[in-house]
Amino acid sequence: MTEDERYMKLALQLAELGRGQTSPNPLVGAVIVKDGVIIGQGAHLKAGGPHAEVHALRMAGEAARDSTIYVTLEPCSHHGRTPPCADAIVEAGIQRVVYAAQDPNPAVSGQGAARLREAGVEVVQGVLASEAHKQNEAFWVWVTEERPFVVWKCAATLDGYIAADSGHSTYVTSDEARASVQRLRRDVAAIAVGVKTVIEDNPRLTVRGPSLAAEAMLTGVVNKASFADLETTQGYRQPVRVVFDSKLRTPITSALLGEAGKTLIYTTHYGYDSAGTEYVSGLTRAGAVVIPVMADEADHVYLPEALRDMAKQGISSLLVEGGSTLVASFLEERLVDKVLYYLAPKFLRSGIRATKGRRTERMLDALNLDKVSYEQVGPDILVTGYPRFEEKPRWWLGGV
Amino acid sequence: MTEDERYMKLALQLAELGRGQTSPNPLVGAVIVKDGVIIGQGAHLKAGGPHAEVHALRMAGEAARDSTIYVTLEPCSHHGRTPPCADAIVEAGIQRVVYAAQDPNPAVSGQGAARLREAGVEVVQGVLASEAHKQNEAFWVWVTEERPFVVWKCAATLDGYIAADSGHSTYVTSDEARASVQRLRRDVAAIAVGVKTVIEDNPRLTVRGPSLAAEAMLTGVVNKASFADLETTQGYRQPVRVVFDSKLRTPITSALLGEAGKTLIYTTHYGYDSAGTEYVSGLTRAGAVVIPVMADEADHVYLPEALRDMAKQGISSLLVEGGSTLVASFLEERLVDKVLYYLAPKFLRSGIRATKGRRTERMLDALNLDKVSYEQVGPDILVTGYPRFEEKPRWWLGGV
Repeated sequence: MTEDERYMKLALQLAELGRGQTSPNPLVGAVIVKDGVIIGQGAHLKAGGPHAEVHALRMAGEAARDSTIYVTLEPCSHHGRTPPCADAIVEAGIQRVVYAAQDPNPAVSGQGAARLREAGVEVVQGVLASEAHKQNEAFWVWVTEERPFVVWKCAATLDGYIAADSGHSTYVTSDEARASVQRLRRDVAAIAVGVKTVIEDNPRLTVRGPSLAAEAMLTGVVNKASFADLETTQGYRQPVRVVFDSKLRTPITSALLGEAGKTLIYTTHYGYDSAGTEYVSGLTRAGAVVIPVMADEADHVYLPEALRDMAKQGISSLLVEGGSTLVASFLEERLVDKVLYYLAPKFLRSGIRATKGRRTERMLDALNLDKVSYEQVGPDILVTGYPRFEEKPRWWLGGV
Repeated sequence: MTEDERYMKLALQLAELGRGQTSPNPLVGAVIVKDGVIIGQGAHLKAGGPHAEVHALRMAGEAARDSTIYVTLEPCSHHGRTPPCADAIVEAGIQRVVYAAQDPNPAVSGQGAARLREAGVEVVQGVLASEAHKQNEAFWVWVTEERPFVVWKCAATLDGYIAADSGHSTYVTSDEARASVQRLRRDVAAIAVGVKTVIEDNPRLTVRGPSLAAEAMLTGVVNKASFADLETTQGYRQPVRVVFDSKLRTPITSALLGEAGKTLIYTTHYGYDSAGTEYVSGLTRAGAVVIPVMADEADHVYLPEALRDMAKQGISSLLVEGGSTLVASFLEERLVDKVLYYLAPKFLRSGIRATKGRRTERMLDALNLDKVSYEQVGPDILVTGYPRFEEKPRWWLGGV
């Protein structure tokens, strides 16, 4: 590992502190180094708040002159809610800028680097670029595909059951695995379930547990004084709750409607029109935003349109938690970017499956995961992977 | 780790060389140490061949006097196919004997130690006892319960399918995982399948690939000169093939009947009597031994009786490979000691399950695995665990 890579790794670790807080902005970390000494550091902690570079420059102060700044993402050149970081870097007299990933937005990509070079600053790009890309994998999809990055989370027994035949599912996995799911919920912009899950399980779909920043404080990873924004991030926002409800039958008394934060209910035009205005305004009064979109061939909510609408509302990542009909729809539409599969070391031998499917002829019709990794979580195991949809035969795309 | 533990660990590693070759004898390893120098080492490599202590004593020769011998199992005191090791140790003038596990056979347990002590040898027992017990977990069950140690091996997709709905299953797992199954087959005394698997898949149920001793030679783990028996172990025996065939309908042309080694077909008395003598003698001529036993309530082969018969024939471990009916019977009878579950990181969404089950009401009716460990095998994962049957409610025991 080169010196540049070591400092970039530190910047990536700092960026990680903002996980779950910066949406729809990316995670960004910055480190300023002069004569082998770290004189400034920062992370982007909240959309609308200062960028990582600004935090780091403030900490370095006058010492920033003739130093090197390491940033995980190309410094911005445009006026958003904050002034351009490229200008701030030039003004501070920074000598050398090392960044990992280019801005994914094609409209501004490379402009920050160009502005820095024009001002005579040495620019190095691509240091730990793939790590930086992975750190912001949701942001990348949101910017380039104009839809949220979709994560399917599932908890099943070794033999593939998510619940007993009766529907009883408390609990498939261990306390540790369920705590890990809470952290996962905290890290996404929105959580989605199908209406059947709302009716049968009545979930709250909220994040319980401490914020990452608070955890970092407690474990001493971050010095309170170095992050002016930290205090304001402890009152952690709840991810948006999303219900897919083609026929519009979410109970007005559903627990998730009473929770803090926003609830979106996507339905079909037919479902919306059939539901009656009184019921729709009841849902609205209970706190939901009801959004009618096109129906697909199975008369379900047409997912691409719903996801496009979410992206417009700034939702950059969506955690799909079930049930099996909704998961099947996402898989059929090839709209699952990442799978987080919690496996409990037990056998139920009969019960409810994670996703509906139809008769298969060959083992190679299976949907493979790429870049698979395994992690032990308490007694359970978490399998992480990225579906490889392009290999599927055409007919695999049909309805369930 | 103490000095005694370090040498015992070496003895355990040596013992491992005999894996799959010593049945029905246990794996045993021995190391002789004098003044901090290893002067002898040995492993039991083949039933009927010298015990580990004898190999080690031969290597040490005269130098064995006043040394310490580390043995993974209590030295024997009885005349079997070879003379008692306790006597050989005394005659060699060994000063101190350190062993890990006591002999599991209640008729002789502790007698080896007693004989050594009588002769004035210092005896220490229980060093790395649990490791030694685990190394011979099959032998322990065979001796104390008079049945083979039963291992259920399964290869499934993440969502719990072992084949497509059509029955097509080539391949669930990777080359690496399938090679690992070959090693597994090599390590057991017998491999079992149900008759439906014989009819539909026509498996050979043989071990392909090099023997462990040959592998150890190639990798330099074992010095050829130190193991007189090594040459004779390279022509590796095939595990016994076992077919559970209640109605006796194994095709006489089945591939497994033509393979080297023994094939046992367990059937019911009814199945045997109904089959006709011509068919039975056809099976016998084709190389099978047909054994009628009691039927259980489902008119299947009564597993406890079949397993008792196997134990009498010296079969100390049985690998159950399927199909789903046979696996269900073993689970219902609580006759699975260990599970080896290969998981391929893919989703089939519809297909054939590993085991039949019946309607479940609660998630806590699941059968848990104890002492679970995970291991990556190529792109797949191997989950190993020990079923915890005692927690199951009484009704769980009923037929499928």
